[in-house]
Amino acid sequence: MKLYTHFRSSAAFRVRIALNLKGVPYESIPKSFVKHEQRSADYLAVNPQGLIPALDIQGAVLSQTLAIIEYLNEQFPTPAFLPADPIQRAHVRSMAMAVACDIHPIGNLRVLNYLRKEFKQDESGVAAWYRHWVTAGFKGLEEQARQYSKTGRFCHGDAVSLADICLVPQMFNARRFETDLSAFPTLAGISSHLESLPAFAAARPEVQADAV
Amino acid sequence: MKLYTHFRSSAAFRVRIALNLKGVPYESIPKSFVKHEQRSADYLAVNPQGLIPALDIQGAVLSQTLAIIEYLNEQFPTPAFLPADPIQRAHVRSMAMAVACDIHPIGNLRVLNYLRKEFKQDESGVAAWYRHWVTAGFKGLEEQARQYSKTGRFCHGDAVSLADICLVPQMFNARRFETDLSAFPTLAGISSHLESLPAFAAARPEVQADAV
Repeated sequence: MKLYTHFRSSAAFRVRIALNLKGVPYESIPKSFVKHEQRSADYLAVNPQGLIPALDIQGAVLSQTLAIIEYLNEQFPTPAFLPADPIQRAHVRSMAMAVACDIHPIGNLRVLNYLRKEFKQDESGVAAWYRHWVTAGFKGLEEQARQYSKTGRFCHGDAVSLADICLVPQMFNARRFETDLSAFPTLAGISSHLESLPAFAAARPEVQADAV
Repeated sequence: MKLYTHFRSSAAFRVRIALNLKGVPYESIPKSFVKHEQRSADYLAVNPQGLIPALDIQGAVLSQTLAIIEYLNEQFPTPAFLPADPIQRAHVRSMAMAVACDIHPIGNLRVLNYLRKEFKQDESGVAAWYRHWVTAGFKGLEEQARQYSKTGRFCHGDAVSLADICLVPQMFNARRFETDLSAFPTLAGISSHLESLPAFAAARPEVQADAV
């Protein structure tokens, strides 16, 4: 498998974690955001959505992180990223999507660049925007984690899940934007535990080959 | 089942389509955005994420539309919202998420209100923002639909899927913001066909009990 990636993309970070947890070897193909390589004709031919990451599986290219990770979970069942019970499975997907739909896209690089360019926002306006949405999203997620985490080590139950895979990269970015996380002790504790696990640690931005 | 809904929420629109396609009867519980009922303590006790929709299944409340619809698809297999082939299933999920992750959340009401309040944007600035992101997202989706739609009647293959359920509500909103859709003939054709189907037509905002 070949992963089109960027060290700082928190979406690519999710897929790196998922591949590591499943023990699936992959080749990294870094795309430079500085050079806008994700919008190049070459890359658009690979992934028409023009976003990072994409996963090439013997020529079939998958896009959108949760679609990719659901695929990996179907093909490589262990460890399972979703609980067996249908209601609990929906709760895990909901927690993952709280990040993947309602926090991350609003704070994505292309959106922040729009704020800078079209709304003439300086870095403090951009950071306030970022922190606003991560705080709004983490409020609900903290409550869900409080309800569903059994031991404070994982978002749901006592096993790694799709929700954990989404939480950690979002937590990295929240810290990068100096978000006040004091209202989210459950999420902070879970992320701290997860970050100590080898599959998560090896997926961190700063240890990727393209990190600058 | 009880659906916490708002007539104009394109996320609730998706779940209404899904319930109609599966032939599952449900009770609507409208929440007024004007009265900010989705942020009330009562509703937050039901759905900690504070977003519409949520689906109550005998006391278990599910949130996030794609999590809800995946649940419905698991419980009520016909018609299937995802293809049997794993790679094709990932393509359908990717198309759905192009809307649910990378278009819809950025144009959500709460985000538009932030632009108005914090960035002092007038309605033309807000509409330009909305159109920018729907256009960016539809570009990739048009190419995917061109590749994967067999007959121009559905986003993928020749059957209704999760991608169709996401496309139609997004198309409604794109038109509401007077987005130029001339570059997206495949998506427009698919949406036009889908909107003629009873399950989609009955889920439209303007025919809901709480429509104003």
